[in-house]
Amino acid sequence: MPNPPSNSKGSDYAAAGVDMDAKYRAVEMMTAAVKSTYGPEVLAGIGAFGGLYDAGGLLRSMHSPVLVASTDGVGTKVELAARAGRYEPLGEDIVNHCVNDILVQGARPLFFLDYFATSAIRPEITAAVVSGAARACRQAGCALIGGETAEMPGVYLPGQFDVAGTIVGAVDRGRILPRPTLGPGDQLIGIRSTGPHTNGYSLLRKIFAGTPLETVFPELGVTLAEALLAPHRSYLPVLAPLLARENSPVKALAHLTGGGWIENPPRVLPEGIGAEVQLGSWPVPPLFTLVQRLGEINPREMYRVFNMGIGMLAVVARDDVDEVRRQIPEETWVVGELVAGEQKVILK
Amino acid sequence: MPNPPSNSKGSDYAAAGVDMDAKYRAVEMMTAAVKSTYGPEVLAGIGAFGGLYDAGGLLRSMHSPVLVASTDGVGTKVELAARAGRYEPLGEDIVNHCVNDILVQGARPLFFLDYFATSAIRPEITAAVVSGAARACRQAGCALIGGETAEMPGVYLPGQFDVAGTIVGAVDRGRILPRPTLGPGDQLIGIRSTGPHTNGYSLLRKIFAGTPLETVFPELGVTLAEALLAPHRSYLPVLAPLLARENSPVKALAHLTGGGWIENPPRVLPEGIGAEVQLGSWPVPPLFTLVQRLGEINPREMYRVFNMGIGMLAVVARDDVDEVRRQIPEETWVVGELVAGEQKVILK
Repeated sequence: MPNPPSNSKGSDYAAAGVDMDAKYRAVEMMTAAVKSTYGPEVLAGIGAFGGLYDAGGLLRSMHSPVLVASTDGVGTKVELAARAGRYEPLGEDIVNHCVNDILVQGARPLFFLDYFATSAIRPEITAAVVSGAARACRQAGCALIGGETAEMPGVYLPGQFDVAGTIVGAVDRGRILPRPTLGPGDQLIGIRSTGPHTNGYSLLRKIFAGTPLETVFPELGVTLAEALLAPHRSYLPVLAPLLARENSPVKALAHLTGGGWIENPPRVLPEGIGAEVQLGSWPVPPLFTLVQRLGEINPREMYRVFNMGIGMLAVVARDDVDEVRRQIPEETWVVGELVAGEQKVILK
Repeated sequence: MPNPPSNSKGSDYAAAGVDMDAKYRAVEMMTAAVKSTYGPEVLAGIGAFGGLYDAGGLLRSMHSPVLVASTDGVGTKVELAARAGRYEPLGEDIVNHCVNDILVQGARPLFFLDYFATSAIRPEITAAVVSGAARACRQAGCALIGGETAEMPGVYLPGQFDVAGTIVGAVDRGRILPRPTLGPGDQLIGIRSTGPHTNGYSLLRKIFAGTPLETVFPELGVTLAEALLAPHRSYLPVLAPLLARENSPVKALAHLTGGGWIENPPRVLPEGIGAEVQLGSWPVPPLFTLVQRLGEINPREMYRVFNMGIGMLAVVARDDVDEVRRQIPEETWVVGELVAGEQKVILK
């Protein structure tokens, strides 16, 4: 984020389609929200060339500190959000997506940086997205220490924008997930998603291209906008207590993002181990059934694109299943197990 | 970056404008370049949910380690690069821009993550940009431990793409720049830029909108494409030896990016200290003179948008000027000094 406004007018640059004043107004509008994420570790944030995060205390508290970093975007969910005029949830989407991506390696977030680019900056939209990101950062105990707002006429379609972000967290080397103890018979516990999260939106947009976002399908009970734009949830609050235990029973986690059920679990499986998933073992939310019917999409493709109602899988030994499910303060489902075989997912 | 191809075809998703196979081909094409940036600290990179960087050794070697992070984009230079079909330099642009942004706080880079989003993935373009980023990472001793390639039909204009990135580095707390000893009389040493770097491109595109990129203006001696697309240089090689010294004479650095001479130096000045810059004390490269003439841009606006031939300023005590200039292995210029007064830049 740039520093506060200077007294220059920028008329020539403005004529080229770049409104520096809009950028500064956006920064002013988001500053309080961003600063609300700062703990004492943040030595410099908004306005500095780079954000400064004092990692001394945290990293010295670990035996062998490993930094974990991930960059992601929210995909074409941004286009739907623009149509619906709902911007703040996108900030939660990007932060929570990133939080979950490093959680599956056992890491807790330290700090986050946002990237917002658009054809023409409208300060209230940028500020809403960043404020949503700041809220999700506060909830994750993570500082929003930097970011960039870019105005790019001629690159983005008019009125369109993109939202991406980068998270950095830390994990003690001995606690990195997945654990080497993964093996046949380990059970897959599914934790619910809050919608399609940030995946499959180009397909969703195609299917609902002719449907007004205010439409209420009876099986959804809410407007299409609400169903499609529900923010990506964070699994940190329900999983962090389990992961923090001295002998955590969680052997692996898989975040069901782009590539869905088919491509994500293999990312944490060792060679010679596959996963069998029992279809019907959890309730598929009506949105996915509706999408499948309207789009005439074959079942395998549905499971390759969407999370189908389960956003995170935890892999635990059979003996630990009951205890782990008791420790997760919401309904979960045993949805399958690891088996000897090819490093892939079999839907049964 | 996603993991390698599965055996699914993705026909429905492809019909919605998302070509998963193109994404996987891009990943295959860039993998060797990305892996060439890995040192022994990288425990997981391409294909993992998040990149893993073992920070134990480095951070224990510091008295009080501070992480420094910055996100940036290359702006609408991407549009010119697309027109010229020159993609690889954009990867250097984004990495070097980020390297310089944390260098001004005294930090050396640890790792980098890229973000590449486009209307429709063309694997060779994505791979070229990421390969350029990998080359710049290698030169900076920095690992490219993650990234995201996003296909976003309906958000980007056809054929357009965006390139952004995030860098994380480290600095010992006692060596953070700027130093509190900055004061009136300190001298500004200017180090040359390699062109407009990544700033002012919307204005440049407007000025040269009707000019073929193959045009050779006599004062430039190279094609317009070459002049405008020269990659943003990194100042790490020429400044790192100075910064590493026990009592480094460098009190502050300012990276002259967006906001140029007017807005960047004040970001490192304490209250009650301004900077006087002596116009004419360094040779303004002919590209900027040409731009000013063709665009009929007033001088102050030129210095607010462009670096005018100086990409980095080092602030040093008057007594250290000669020694610092000897230590920088290229021509430099004394371009001004700090003065008591408002926290701003006065062009004289």
